[in-house]
Amino acid sequence: MTAAGEESGGRRRGRPTAGDSESADRRTRILRSARAEFAERGYDKASVRAIARGADVDPALVHHYFGTKERVFEAALETALAPVRGGLGRLPEVPPEELGPQVTRFVLGVWEDPSTRDPLLAIVRSAVSNETAAAIFRGVVTRLLLPRLTGALDGPDRELRAELAVAQLVGTAMLRYVIRVEPLASADPETLVDRLAPVVQHHLTAPDRK
Amino acid sequence: MTAAGEESGGRRRGRPTAGDSESADRRTRILRSARAEFAERGYDKASVRAIARGADVDPALVHHYFGTKERVFEAALETALAPVRGGLGRLPEVPPEELGPQVTRFVLGVWEDPSTRDPLLAIVRSAVSNETAAAIFRGVVTRLLLPRLTGALDGPDRELRAELAVAQLVGTAMLRYVIRVEPLASADPETLVDRLAPVVQHHLTAPDRK
Repeated sequence: MTAAGEESGGRRRGRPTAGDSESADRRTRILRSARAEFAERGYDKASVRAIARGADVDPALVHHYFGTKERVFEAALETALAPVRGGLGRLPEVPPEELGPQVTRFVLGVWEDPSTRDPLLAIVRSAVSNETAAAIFRGVVTRLLLPRLTGALDGPDRELRAELAVAQLVGTAMLRYVIRVEPLASADPETLVDRLAPVVQHHLTAPDRK
Repeated sequence: MTAAGEESGGRRRGRPTAGDSESADRRTRILRSARAEFAERGYDKASVRAIARGADVDPALVHHYFGTKERVFEAALETALAPVRGGLGRLPEVPPEELGPQVTRFVLGVWEDPSTRDPLLAIVRSAVSNETAAAIFRGVVTRLLLPRLTGALDGPDRELRAELAVAQLVGTAMLRYVIRVEPLASADPETLVDRLAPVVQHHLTAPDRK
């Protein structure tokens, strides 16, 4: 880490003008390289050195921007999940009876679009096969995603219900896009929305009867 | 379960011949070592040589029993999925309106029991992070598991509905046992059966309305 970086704990850029966009560009390159490295070699075997090489920067710069491999993974995951986060942020405007169709349509949309699916898939594969990566994944999901979904719900068991709704969509994505089991893998997205929305709605808005 | 299992491919019991039981024992050791090797190093990096070393046998013997690494993986997966297969085999005796609770209870039971969960988890992790392993996984699920579930269902879209029911349970297992998101990870299994059974039932027995 460069000695020049210590002022108020915040991130500090080398240069005030052209340096800003250069810095943003380098961060983007590092995160893209990180995703490729984690996807190709798995979390365990991935190295900051290889990530730096893929981004054409010095390894010290990766450490400077992100810190450890754990934090690079976390940043890459947050970037890959940004579209999901954005979509969930709009849920408070959705009427309760529309939550099932909206959440289903939105999550399937993220997975149907290769530009949002591929980064997600690359990073999710790492999370499933390594305990540390799974813990980081859990932290990001708990901190950034679930509160946006539960915030749109009522009832004391809303966290559990939100997670079971997400489980239906996560499992569908696994079988459709990762394992690619037919006929699910080739099913028309609208057929899936028709089938899944009532179930997601049931989880989200049917509070515990006890 | 008391049935002696398949005589042909499986392990034979109660046969006094020394060569037979030694052979069965070696196959079991190889499959156990394979699971550990795939779990620890991932499908890509796993090697037949290391599997043989872990089982304390010659690599040629692994090739003799199973053939390539692909086939060792397939055999390990089939062994890990045997309890699921056995449970699904009993579905034809279950009344249609009981399918949701029974399938849910049975699948959660397999995941709740460490002796059936751990082998499954070890091998599933490999399947998610590697394309070849995913293809083998797809083949085994399509050939051995899904027909047993769809066989108990009616309607032209029963394959798709069976897969969406499985998706709910696979996603729940992912979030509960792999990513371990709370409160789902610590939820009482009976609460989960109460929540999931109606959804699984809906998928399994609500044919396409079109």
